[in-house]
Amino acid sequence: MGTARGTAVLLSTRANAMADWAEALGALDPSLDIRLFPDAGDPADIEAAVVWTEHDMAELRRYPNLKLIVSMGAGVDHLLRPPGPPPGVPVARLVDERLTQGMTEWVLLNVLRFHRQDPEYRAQQAARIWQELPAPDTAARRIGILGLGALGGAAARALRGLGFPVMGWSRRPKALADVECFHGADGLAAMAPRADILVCLLPLTPQTRGILGGELLRSLPRGAYVINGARGGHVVDADLLRALDTGQVAGAALDVFEPEPLPADHPYWSHPRVFVTPHAASITIPRSAAPQVVENIRRMRAGRPLINLVDPAAGY
Amino acid sequence: MGTARGTAVLLSTRANAMADWAEALGALDPSLDIRLFPDAGDPADIEAAVVWTEHDMAELRRYPNLKLIVSMGAGVDHLLRPPGPPPGVPVARLVDERLTQGMTEWVLLNVLRFHRQDPEYRAQQAARIWQELPAPDTAARRIGILGLGALGGAAARALRGLGFPVMGWSRRPKALADVECFHGADGLAAMAPRADILVCLLPLTPQTRGILGGELLRSLPRGAYVINGARGGHVVDADLLRALDTGQVAGAALDVFEPEPLPADHPYWSHPRVFVTPHAASITIPRSAAPQVVENIRRMRAGRPLINLVDPAAGY
Repeated sequence: MGTARGTAVLLSTRANAMADWAEALGALDPSLDIRLFPDAGDPADIEAAVVWTEHDMAELRRYPNLKLIVSMGAGVDHLLRPPGPPPGVPVARLVDERLTQGMTEWVLLNVLRFHRQDPEYRAQQAARIWQELPAPDTAARRIGILGLGALGGAAARALRGLGFPVMGWSRRPKALADVECFHGADGLAAMAPRADILVCLLPLTPQTRGILGGELLRSLPRGAYVINGARGGHVVDADLLRALDTGQVAGAALDVFEPEPLPADHPYWSHPRVFVTPHAASITIPRSAAPQVVENIRRMRAGRPLINLVDPAAGY
Repeated sequence: MGTARGTAVLLSTRANAMADWAEALGALDPSLDIRLFPDAGDPADIEAAVVWTEHDMAELRRYPNLKLIVSMGAGVDHLLRPPGPPPGVPVARLVDERLTQGMTEWVLLNVLRFHRQDPEYRAQQAARIWQELPAPDTAARRIGILGLGALGGAAARALRGLGFPVMGWSRRPKALADVECFHGADGLAAMAPRADILVCLLPLTPQTRGILGGELLRSLPRGAYVINGARGGHVVDADLLRALDTGQVAGAALDVFEPEPLPADHPYWSHPRVFVTPHAASITIPRSAAPQVVENIRRMRAGRPLINLVDPAAGY
């Protein structure tokens, strides 16, 4: 099967996205022999797997000639957790303008929601109260961004463009124009007490799991806001709920949870100061993301260096 | 009274803002002889009046030596309606970075609210529904801005910066970088059918009163959104409510009303697709606005051309 055709690519994603991905990849390279999981055909044919971030890595050990795994998202924590990808098979993730754009918009919407006192104005509207609140002062509203990769960097630039003072924190030292950069544990301790709005766009790794927990939340200025567009595993839910209930945290916007979907009885759903979106901040558009996938398949075939490669040791 | 001091300036604003304005002006020019309305002292002393936009223009006819009126807002429709300012006395308005910044943020918040399907996600949260909606496509969400002055121009630039295609309409022809510009009645008819989100930042004049009425609303794409940060008089409320109820308009964000405060029994308060703020989009900060006021007082004293002058014939 497929011997007369081009590279055999295993495609695995949610049922409702399968056709769009197959069409987007096929349109760019009609020679691709696209197999829709679980109908892989002869496992020995498969050289590349383009998989949703929740695909079972153990399953990929079935394909003895697999040389490339491409994740359909920006985050790859699901792929790297044990057992991880088959030994020696490189993993690439998506770095996509549409993904970045979506996250930037979601972050801006929520920063502006809190900055502009929108929850208070919604409550006033419900009570038919006409009352101007104190004017927000953009130059005094300090934003702290955790993670300065593709997503964090773009959010930082957009927020600077609107006039907010922006700080950023990353594991290793980084430099971004007009962003006050911090790194390491000392840097986080220095930045947090000044972050009126804390935005998390970190990769989820053993080092960052639970970072939005009691210690960090207590070190924020009283009445700070928390925005998490990264992974549910970054948040210690009980700590965040406690901080919301004491007023230490004045509001939270959360797009990601552990587990997902967010269970129907979770307190976030009904919390008046929590704004839930269903992992919808940044949605992969197959047509937008397909070119880099096809490019990586070609590089794999030609033995050239891959793009958007993940470092399993770093976890992102 | 005041004969040994500098220019006598009548200051008239809301009680809660009077001290801030007096302090901001006095800090910049301690020689100013600031009189707090209604304690004007000898009416013949007063050479300049710095007034809230709702100050009674008939009252200003009491001051025979008045040579300058400065409005404490961007809009001057209240000042120009009959009887208008005393004949021959020039009126300046505020063109202030903080005013512009506030309006830009309010517009962005509401554009992003609609673009990112936030009302739908809020409703889903209330019903504990975890469901991703179709990904919004920024490049296909066309914004139409009515009014390309200081406020409209700034909103256009910010929206372009986020990647939205932006169109703009003004009375007279204008050219803005990366904005498709329209003017006149024909231009409005050409722009409206393509405006997925219509933002009104026009001055209120006899020509623009009621512009957000049945004809324009019917010519928008079905399911468009309307954002009004200008004046309540731009909207024909009954027409907008009808368009919301038929689904022709999918949502509206309104900061301004006629009359204000919005009456407690007005249908906007409880409409699920109307987002009310109490004329709070753009709040004048005395310390930020004071320098241009002092500058105009000095220019008036020196007989030099005034800045931010209003053209009463044009109405803005």
